[in-house]
Amino acid sequence: MAANGAPSSPSFEALSSRTARSLIDSVDAFLFDCDGVIWTGHKLIDGVPEVLQTLRSLGKKLLFVTNNASKSRNQYVKKFHTLGLDVCKDDIFSSSFAAAMFLKLNNFPQNKKAYVVGAEGILEEMNLAGYACLGGPEGGKNMELDLSLLTECDKSIGAVVVGLDKHINHHKLQYATLCIRENPDCLFIATDAAGHLLANLEQCSDYQCAGCTISSLCASTEKEPIVVGKPSSFIMDILVERFQINPAKMCMVGDRLNTDILFGQNAGCKTLLVLSGVTTLSALQDPSNDIYPNYYTSNVFNIVELLRT
Amino acid sequence: MAANGAPSSPSFEALSSRTARSLIDSVDAFLFDCDGVIWTGHKLIDGVPEVLQTLRSLGKKLLFVTNNASKSRNQYVKKFHTLGLDVCKDDIFSSSFAAAMFLKLNNFPQNKKAYVVGAEGILEEMNLAGYACLGGPEGGKNMELDLSLLTECDKSIGAVVVGLDKHINHHKLQYATLCIRENPDCLFIATDAAGHLLANLEQCSDYQCAGCTISSLCASTEKEPIVVGKPSSFIMDILVERFQINPAKMCMVGDRLNTDILFGQNAGCKTLLVLSGVTTLSALQDPSNDIYPNYYTSNVFNIVELLRT
Repeated sequence: MAANGAPSSPSFEALSSRTARSLIDSVDAFLFDCDGVIWTGHKLIDGVPEVLQTLRSLGKKLLFVTNNASKSRNQYVKKFHTLGLDVCKDDIFSSSFAAAMFLKLNNFPQNKKAYVVGAEGILEEMNLAGYACLGGPEGGKNMELDLSLLTECDKSIGAVVVGLDKHINHHKLQYATLCIRENPDCLFIATDAAGHLLANLEQCSDYQCAGCTISSLCASTEKEPIVVGKPSSFIMDILVERFQINPAKMCMVGDRLNTDILFGQNAGCKTLLVLSGVTTLSALQDPSNDIYPNYYTSNVFNIVELLRT
Repeated sequence: MAANGAPSSPSFEALSSRTARSLIDSVDAFLFDCDGVIWTGHKLIDGVPEVLQTLRSLGKKLLFVTNNASKSRNQYVKKFHTLGLDVCKDDIFSSSFAAAMFLKLNNFPQNKKAYVVGAEGILEEMNLAGYACLGGPEGGKNMELDLSLLTECDKSIGAVVVGLDKHINHHKLQYATLCIRENPDCLFIATDAAGHLLANLEQCSDYQCAGCTISSLCASTEKEPIVVGKPSSFIMDILVERFQINPAKMCMVGDRLNTDILFGQNAGCKTLLVLSGVTTLSALQDPSNDIYPNYYTSNVFNIVELLRT
């Protein structure tokens, strides 16, 4: 089994009628990544409604696990509904929610604040969890710092939470860095893995992902963040406790090797890579890649389409 | 000798009257870093005029080598004059100038453009070298990108030059990334080393240095930059050719271990760390440090002060 992301040999195969059947028979739950799996931007990926309906009719639990922290679970419910999909909040595990849960489970004091480099989704989940926040997309958007000034940060900030912020600027990066470096025990929480994760030009050429901002802050703070999104096991631990499903009876379906597939592998899930997002078949087969899903297929629709053949 | 930054054992000593004399006797040129050595922000460091005057009267060549690309050499001449120091343009080697020289020495075509993530200094040096630039502090300052749009970059951009840009934003990072990833053979030039380099809270608590932006772009481009600033040997090669001085007859004086001191060591210069900038004595002595200058002293004034005792 490919536990700990270190499979002994490159063994993966294209999903077939036989393996699709055996995969569905062998698991009780499917965990879906969203971007590149369920949708691309504002567009639903073909066949998704039928896949969800078929898997549900077979009694499978469907859960949605995304490292896109720009939305809260409430905002994701709306997005699912807009796209014609009936998904409830309790089945959505976004890294915005994971960040708030991390603070809660670690007894982050209610009198401490979080500084957010990221979008509305993080702010909303933090507030729902009862934490006061500074920052966010609008916070300090137009501020500039004078290099010659010694800037102080709010000493009540006990955590910095980082996701993609399209309004990123010098002030925000500097303020986040000051908090992490100068406030004793200040947590540095990342909603995604550091580094670059998008690679498919056909889908989207926006290369500035959360991981790039996180990389910048790793450099300026000289610290590594606590990653609450995939591939960290943090969300899996919550899933297992909440739904009492053995990870061996789950299948993680995603489009990214070093987040989705690694997340599933680390937990001992079955893993299915779909090629409808950022990973191409040649990237999967590239000798430099060392993360292999159990199966790969062009898109989620094949899971049910293959049952018919 | 500590060539290639890998000294065999931690041997460094505080500059003394004896070693100051022998250091001065053994070299023909002093290479000074600027920030933290000659000045701190807008303030001249005590004793600098006397040091420069004394060393010149002893027939030493004085050169100034800085990784701060925010200014051009012309702008540095003005800064030296404002601080009462007589230094001419030909003796200043800023990484803004180095970036332009790199393009020139590598026959960068005049019909190609450079995209600059950085301050005026880079733009000015590029223009003096005859290259057209896009970007800079004001370029795209207030632009925002739609994630769902496939953004195209100017195909005539053949180089991206990166320094500290206090007006950094999502658009600039994205545009720089697009150029580096999508324009064939586009150069990725860094005016400073990647990563974090400032560490002295007493002097300045602005942690967002050029290295942080460079780290972010390393993540988004999945490429390593060509570093034209210290510790790269690029500037040294120019110095040696222009002034015909053997590096063994030079002393590099700086406040940073992984840029200044490494730069000097790699070239085979004598090295003197001053503690008036970002490096503290405890950082120098920390077991995690593996870059050792020949000598260290609290500030440049000691070089001549010690001659008197």
